[in-house]
Amino acid sequence: MSAYDELMAHERETQALAQVAGRLSWDQETVMPRGAAEQRSEESGAMEAVLHARRTDPRVGEWLAAAEAPDEVGAAQLRQIRRAHDRARKVPAELATALARLTSRSQGVWAEARANDDFAAFAPTLEEVVRLKREEAAALAENVTLYDALLDDFEPGATAAMLEALFEDMRPGLVQLRKRALEGVAAEGVSGEFPAEVQLSLARELAGRFGYDRTRGRLDLAVHPFSSGSGDDVRITTRTAADDPFNCIYSTIHETGHACYEQGIDPAYRLTPLGQGVSMGVHESQSRIYENQLGRSPAFCRWLYGEMRARFGDIGVSDEEAFYRAVNRVHRGYIRTEADEVQYNLHIMLRFDLEKALVAGDLAVRDLEAAWNERFLKDFGYPVDKASNGVLQDVHWSVGLFGYFPTYSLGNVYAGCLNKALRAAVPDVDAHLERGDPGPAVEWLHENVQRHGGRYEPREVITLACGGEEPSAGPLMGYLADKFCALYPG
Amino acid sequence: MSAYDELMAHERETQALAQVAGRLSWDQETVMPRGAAEQRSEESGAMEAVLHARRTDPRVGEWLAAAEAPDEVGAAQLRQIRRAHDRARKVPAELATALARLTSRSQGVWAEARANDDFAAFAPTLEEVVRLKREEAAALAENVTLYDALLDDFEPGATAAMLEALFEDMRPGLVQLRKRALEGVAAEGVSGEFPAEVQLSLARELAGRFGYDRTRGRLDLAVHPFSSGSGDDVRITTRTAADDPFNCIYSTIHETGHACYEQGIDPAYRLTPLGQGVSMGVHESQSRIYENQLGRSPAFCRWLYGEMRARFGDIGVSDEEAFYRAVNRVHRGYIRTEADEVQYNLHIMLRFDLEKALVAGDLAVRDLEAAWNERFLKDFGYPVDKASNGVLQDVHWSVGLFGYFPTYSLGNVYAGCLNKALRAAVPDVDAHLERGDPGPAVEWLHENVQRHGGRYEPREVITLACGGEEPSAGPLMGYLADKFCALYPG
Repeated sequence: MSAYDELMAHERETQALAQVAGRLSWDQETVMPRGAAEQRSEESGAMEAVLHARRTDPRVGEWLAAAEAPDEVGAAQLRQIRRAHDRARKVPAELATALARLTSRSQGVWAEARANDDFAAFAPTLEEVVRLKREEAAALAENVTLYDALLDDFEPGATAAMLEALFEDMRPGLVQLRKRALEGVAAEGVSGEFPAEVQLSLARELAGRFGYDRTRGRLDLAVHPFSSGSGDDVRITTRTAADDPFNCIYSTIHETGHACYEQGIDPAYRLTPLGQGVSMGVHESQSRIYENQLGRSPAFCRWLYGEMRARFGDIGVSDEEAFYRAVNRVHRGYIRTEADEVQYNLHIMLRFDLEKALVAGDLAVRDLEAAWNERFLKDFGYPVDKASNGVLQDVHWSVGLFGYFPTYSLGNVYAGCLNKALRAAVPDVDAHLERGDPGPAVEWLHENVQRHGGRYEPREVITLACGGEEPSAGPLMGYLADKFCALYPG
Repeated sequence: MSAYDELMAHERETQALAQVAGRLSWDQETVMPRGAAEQRSEESGAMEAVLHARRTDPRVGEWLAAAEAPDEVGAAQLRQIRRAHDRARKVPAELATALARLTSRSQGVWAEARANDDFAAFAPTLEEVVRLKREEAAALAENVTLYDALLDDFEPGATAAMLEALFEDMRPGLVQLRKRALEGVAAEGVSGEFPAEVQLSLARELAGRFGYDRTRGRLDLAVHPFSSGSGDDVRITTRTAADDPFNCIYSTIHETGHACYEQGIDPAYRLTPLGQGVSMGVHESQSRIYENQLGRSPAFCRWLYGEMRARFGDIGVSDEEAFYRAVNRVHRGYIRTEADEVQYNLHIMLRFDLEKALVAGDLAVRDLEAAWNERFLKDFGYPVDKASNGVLQDVHWSVGLFGYFPTYSLGNVYAGCLNKALRAAVPDVDAHLERGDPGPAVEWLHENVQRHGGRYEPREVITLACGGEEPSAGPLMGYLADKFCALYPG
């Protein structure tokens, strides 16, 4: 066997084990018994130790040195393996294992603190997470800041400076749109009876329409909606709120976007380094375009209005137009995942700045709640009423995901670019959407983005899909201005 | 760190990984998407490769050579580690991995063949399983038969010859009791409406009453009821049949017995080699005593009768006595898991003889269905009507469990011994059972059997629990004769 073949065989087993570790996390967030948390943290730690040992295996270095890529795809495989190997070698095994153990345990601590609106109960654990993540970042960082070292895990090639410039570019427009909307005529929300089982049944219908293959996945309930797994076992979760059906609907479409990306990758890449989404930014571009540019479009809302009335009866809005306004209404809220397309990015910028400060050591965890509340008041104009509506609302930090949040807004930017290219390439997208059929749109995304998996670098795959045009905030901001100026004519 | 401490640290991680592998199997049998089967077989193979590598790690041999047990418990730990190490070293890694891959895949093949009553569709896969298991047995066997080598995995210390003698001892009495019952006045079964969700709710109630800790486990539906996991994450499954509530009820109590054994092991043994049930025979002694000597006792049936009427309304039997007869009725059936206490062991003897022949190479898989049907007709007096009622009814062979079946009857024998000791030690067991409270009985079992985990050898722990009396078929046969002669006075 050639060095390349030996390396790929080793890698295939590593990828299979990474899938097992991912499924263990799925299990923890959906079905694990409460009392198993302590034991689970040892199990997760043991899995991480195995993965770390495989990734740092000296033979991988030798194979990498000797391997010759048989083709372009092979070269991409080697690039991904080298990145993972280099990264893993910098992090001591004890630290990797300790992080896996801690973040397995800390998630439960967060969930309980969130249920009790009690940040103080979570702070000591989060402090430990931040401490270990800073230690990890220090091990990873070579001539870059600690934050950039962590960011690179989620968005290879991106830096905080790039994102800061991007966000500064976007902020004035967003603030202006927000102001216009909040000063305009308030849209009505929906009202009525939304039984959880009917919401779930609609969620399944929507996932299917957006192309989710249930024979290679499943939909469950969880505290925090997420997508998990690659290849032929890609699972999504959602949640229901009795008075807000949009929570379930748009969480589901969002996670369906993630899942379709994973399910849609070229089967030839299954259980190889190319067999998963290339970055979180590209991942979010899929989930956000499914959720927003498609799912919250006027055309799809026309169909969804009929579908919801058929399922729930009277939903308290008088016609399709009012329904579309309800789906896209801009109002004063606290929760990122429930935010409209305009304010969503302001939520991200808040988290981005706070987590940069935490990682840099400029903000102590004990001061985090106050910092959050102060910043929220500044950006949104009203105070946070309770921790579960503020600093405790997201799971990410509890599981050590620092550097992840900005990829949501980056994904929005990418989604803006893709939407522009999609609309140009497939002119009848809306005609299908208003019949409840995202088929041609998701097929285009599959063909131009999803099937490539890790084959191209993040910016590269977006650029390719957009016919050579480099990603920028322009298309997203133009789309948002058109949409929300029409919704709030002022 | 001493060699013993190093070894135990290594072992702790191995045990944690074994828990992960077990949870992967749970996932496969309860929630895995259909289309994930192929990928899952690679994942299971990769996990097995990891476990095999850890168990055969040369350092384990060195640690074992140098380790000094700090006490009796430590000596038991070393004994278990040595056994696992010796076993693993005999089996080539490729074979262990191939078996894990194959048996992950073959389970789905079996399930589909069973649904279609089509043994021929399963035979090629089963042939491959038998081939690999024979190869494994050949690697393991040192001066023992292939079958004994496999049996030792499930019941250390047992041999086919011992079990043959035991079963020959039991057979005449069982055949006689069966004849008496079938010639006697047939008991009526229950009839009525048994909605699946009410059955499940009763199942949860029963599991709780028998001591199952739901905060450290969960109850789900599966094709084949089973218990899975150790320590703080021990999950059970059950199934419901619309016209037979006893299927769900007694499957649940049975699996609760297994689960309580695992949950009840001394927490000091968690994630160590002593932290799991010591053998399948002892495991079955717990599940079978919960199910039969307690769950099917006159006292508990009195309580269950009231409980079922409260939940299901009219269940078609006139009084407690008729209900007890319905629970314990001996009638012509095909399915092992639904069999009464007398015929159950005849089902086992049939499988025991067939699997011995398969493993010895005296019976080809292509002839297995005919051999099953012929033997069933001989033992039970009526022909098998379809494969799902015959050779395809059990999952075991599909997942390579050869040498497992006889431990069910061995478990019955142990349960007979334990029941005798329990009744002598706790005279008011029945007074509690008839109030629906197995508490004192399961507490005695916990104290005398369950908490020890792998601390003592299988026969040793039963002997200890029985005040020094070696296990034999006598107590079980006496119990059965008393019970079924009273039920069928002839």
